[in-house]
Amino acid sequence: MTSQAPVDFYFEFSSPYGYIASQLAEDFEERIGRPLRWRPFLLGPVFKLTGQAPLVEVPMKGEYSKRDFLRSAGLNKVAYRHPAKFPIGTVAAMRAFYWVDDRDPALARKLAKALYTAFFVDGIDISAPQAVIDIAKRIGVDGAGLAAALEDPAVKERAKKEVDGAIAAGVFGSPFFIVDGEPFWGVDRMPMMEQWIRTGGW
Amino acid sequence: MTSQAPVDFYFEFSSPYGYIASQLAEDFEERIGRPLRWRPFLLGPVFKLTGQAPLVEVPMKGEYSKRDFLRSAGLNKVAYRHPAKFPIGTVAAMRAFYWVDDRDPALARKLAKALYTAFFVDGIDISAPQAVIDIAKRIGVDGAGLAAALEDPAVKERAKKEVDGAIAAGVFGSPFFIVDGEPFWGVDRMPMMEQWIRTGGW
Repeated sequence: MTSQAPVDFYFEFSSPYGYIASQLAEDFEERIGRPLRWRPFLLGPVFKLTGQAPLVEVPMKGEYSKRDFLRSAGLNKVAYRHPAKFPIGTVAAMRAFYWVDDRDPALARKLAKALYTAFFVDGIDISAPQAVIDIAKRIGVDGAGLAAALEDPAVKERAKKEVDGAIAAGVFGSPFFIVDGEPFWGVDRMPMMEQWIRTGGW
Repeated sequence: MTSQAPVDFYFEFSSPYGYIASQLAEDFEERIGRPLRWRPFLLGPVFKLTGQAPLVEVPMKGEYSKRDFLRSAGLNKVAYRHPAKFPIGTVAAMRAFYWVDDRDPALARKLAKALYTAFFVDGIDISAPQAVIDIAKRIGVDGAGLAAALEDPAVKERAKKEVDGAIAAGVFGSPFFIVDGEPFWGVDRMPMMEQWIRTGGW
């Protein structure tokens, strides 16, 4: 049975591996013949549940991870400059994504890529709502509408539900994919996932 | 410059990914044209330093990891049965390894593979010193000598120094490789490491 159902693609805007995955997304969709459903979420609430800390703050692992961000980007031929301020809060970026996504999913994906590139290539701190609005405007999003939306309790609630939904689905890291109920964590699991989809699992 | 220097291969005997790496070791050595230097260590003292917990005990991540052990074994065509008792203490296994290694490195490697197979294929609890001794005897290790060695303070100290050395080298997970000072963590980093060695890094 060959499913055409979307593959859930969960990511956090402050996640280097999520960024790399986003850069590989289109080629990946083509190879697996199925669309990705982009779902940004927040790692903060997840880490509270799992007792984890941001990677770079973990003793020993932290220094290693900075090397691995660069190496993983290089391996996948993705531009990467480790941001001076890292990690950052990404609630504004996430809210903006869902507000746009409810209106124009293609534009939301474009926004996600623009936000990621701003942070991981151009060194722009996207934690500030104004930075998110500026970036969104440049790709054709209604800036005034977005500015109002970021203050709207309904939009905040909408985004919060997505985070709760990600947690309920078992998402604990970024990127995280769910294919027909099978979870895959990490950009390094994309080749495994591709083979899994192709062969129907093992 | 093509180095022939050994690549350090750190692993913990209770680590599924370490086991999978051990099964890939010989083919890997052949492809990179360099020997691996097998260095078992203990994750317990490392987790105390990094504030981590055994993978299967981390909320959300725990359930996922059991799937991923099986999938990673399958992807690499390595036999795997998740042990009923897991994780286990592996200090006896590690001490036995170093005692043998100081006398016969080839036999020590054989012992490591036999211990791993006993635990991850045959379901034998290798936390008990007697289980380690029985397995060692079957591959030609002097059982009485090993039994005495496992009680010898000098052997205990020798093994402890290896754990301290691993920590000093920055090892925080299993498997962990160090190639000319460059650290690679995880069986999933072996293809990256191979490319790194082949191209001299990027």
